[in-house]
Amino acid sequence: MTRTTVESATRTVTIGFDEPFCVIGERINPTGRKKLAAELEAGDFSTVERDAIEQVACGAMILDVNAGVVYNSNPNPNETEPPLMGQMIDLVQRLVDVPLCIDSSVPAALEKGLELAKGRPLLNSVTGEEERLELILPLVKKYNVPVVAISNDDTGISEDPDIRFEVAKKIVQRAADFGIPAHDIVVDPLVMPVGAMPSAGRQVFTLVRRLREELGVNTTCGASNISFGLPHRHGINAAFLPMAIGAGMTSAIMNPVRPVEMEAIRAANFLMNHDANGGNWIGFSRVLDAVAEGTSFAEASSVAQQTGSGRSGRRRRRG
Amino acid sequence: MTRTTVESATRTVTIGFDEPFCVIGERINPTGRKKLAAELEAGDFSTVERDAIEQVACGAMILDVNAGVVYNSNPNPNETEPPLMGQMIDLVQRLVDVPLCIDSSVPAALEKGLELAKGRPLLNSVTGEEERLELILPLVKKYNVPVVAISNDDTGISEDPDIRFEVAKKIVQRAADFGIPAHDIVVDPLVMPVGAMPSAGRQVFTLVRRLREELGVNTTCGASNISFGLPHRHGINAAFLPMAIGAGMTSAIMNPVRPVEMEAIRAANFLMNHDANGGNWIGFSRVLDAVAEGTSFAEASSVAQQTGSGRSGRRRRRG
Repeated sequence: MTRTTVESATRTVTIGFDEPFCVIGERINPTGRKKLAAELEAGDFSTVERDAIEQVACGAMILDVNAGVVYNSNPNPNETEPPLMGQMIDLVQRLVDVPLCIDSSVPAALEKGLELAKGRPLLNSVTGEEERLELILPLVKKYNVPVVAISNDDTGISEDPDIRFEVAKKIVQRAADFGIPAHDIVVDPLVMPVGAMPSAGRQVFTLVRRLREELGVNTTCGASNISFGLPHRHGINAAFLPMAIGAGMTSAIMNPVRPVEMEAIRAANFLMNHDANGGNWIGFSRVLDAVAEGTSFAEASSVAQQTGSGRSGRRRRRG
Repeated sequence: MTRTTVESATRTVTIGFDEPFCVIGERINPTGRKKLAAELEAGDFSTVERDAIEQVACGAMILDVNAGVVYNSNPNPNETEPPLMGQMIDLVQRLVDVPLCIDSSVPAALEKGLELAKGRPLLNSVTGEEERLELILPLVKKYNVPVVAISNDDTGISEDPDIRFEVAKKIVQRAADFGIPAHDIVVDPLVMPVGAMPSAGRQVFTLVRRLREELGVNTTCGASNISFGLPHRHGINAAFLPMAIGAGMTSAIMNPVRPVEMEAIRAANFLMNHDANGGNWIGFSRVLDAVAEGTSFAEASSVAQQTGSGRSGRRRRRG
């Protein structure tokens, strides 16, 4: 069975067909978050700190770190992203112990992240574009890390899922030429908004199944894209995630500070027989009880996390 | 593609691989509802009336009618069920125009229902038990109706999904001997509680896929069984239904007066490309808005239904 190993200094996370769904927290990313970008330009990392701690408390198993700012003082990301990536990774590693996903379109920022991240981070990302393949795959090989492979190429993003499959296949083959095994490639088949493309959901389910059966790779996606532009987005997301998991999707880059989506994932793990005896579900149901009584999801999750680890530490052996 | 046609006097519902998921309302059933059984014994049909109207408003496409009472005055269902089935069917048909699912373990009650139900009702059910096959399949043939086939036999309910598949196959073959086509058999592969059997979810997903691909039949289930005995059951149900739909399940016998489960089904329909342009989802999102403001789901659904059909009746052609 395909297993992708991602590590921090102290923790190992396995993305795999026989593992609980891997939630990669997407919040540490200034793209489209003007307030956060301004804070970072001013040297204020308080939002990053909160996002790191809350996401892990809510169930993120890996944290994506993206330093994609456009500063007023310097609009050149090739100059601003690498040092900021370094600062953010140092900070996040001091706060939490989960593995990191180093996310940038700036190669120097990726390399900065690879230098500083402890353990075995996930690199995000390579595409099927020739220039990206030639730039990124040597980094993947040099640092011996797994990589997210996004299935677009020099012709852009195809609406035809068969073409997106072929792009993924090409990336896996090119990686093999560099000596990178398929189990270190996590393919993002690209999720389109179902509001704009009615076949978007079925495309993903079919693609995930093919990627798993024909290429033997793990998969990920930007899950919330599916509901872009629609009312009651969380309801769409909360059906999409279990359906994708049922089709074989093994991870997603998403906001874990959302109880509806996290409830759907935890229920799906149970239904996939990846939650022995429902222990995680029953623990999570106590968090839902606290949310129903007015506690925020992040706060309730944090309390449960502390209680849970305390209990675990004190667990007694049976007779 | 497999299509099972179910009809009332005026409406046709198609259960099929390329159709929206068919919700069969389960509420009209005194089994385990002591209060309802007592009301029926006293000749009070007000709960049945409300259950019929509310379920259809909330999205039931077919109504299950079960007269399984045990009266204090007469504990013999062979005597009490047939006349009660007749009364209930007459009543429900006067109130709503959806097709019916005639549900009994008493053959005389099934035949009473078949005599009185208008159109082409769904018969619920036959099993793989020899006596049931010999009793029920002739009724199915005589009245030319589709039938729910439950995959247990004289040895009981097997925990082995391969055996349940073989029982379903046997029923389909025996039905063929009577001249009943596979598209008139809707197989219930039997959903076990995931709290008691950790493989219960995966069993169903695999079985549904096999039933569809190998036998070409539609499928149904008692959906809420999956979460029996667990906390936050609706969360489990709301992940199970989209996963089952993704695996190919085409109907369920369930309580439609539950917004969480109905939201999951409507989102899954959209994601399966069975909701052209998301029109149903967008309409449903207005119901969710009303529920968020404090209206009951049944009331909000009823208002939306009336507004919706009003609009539909007044719809203008473009161009």
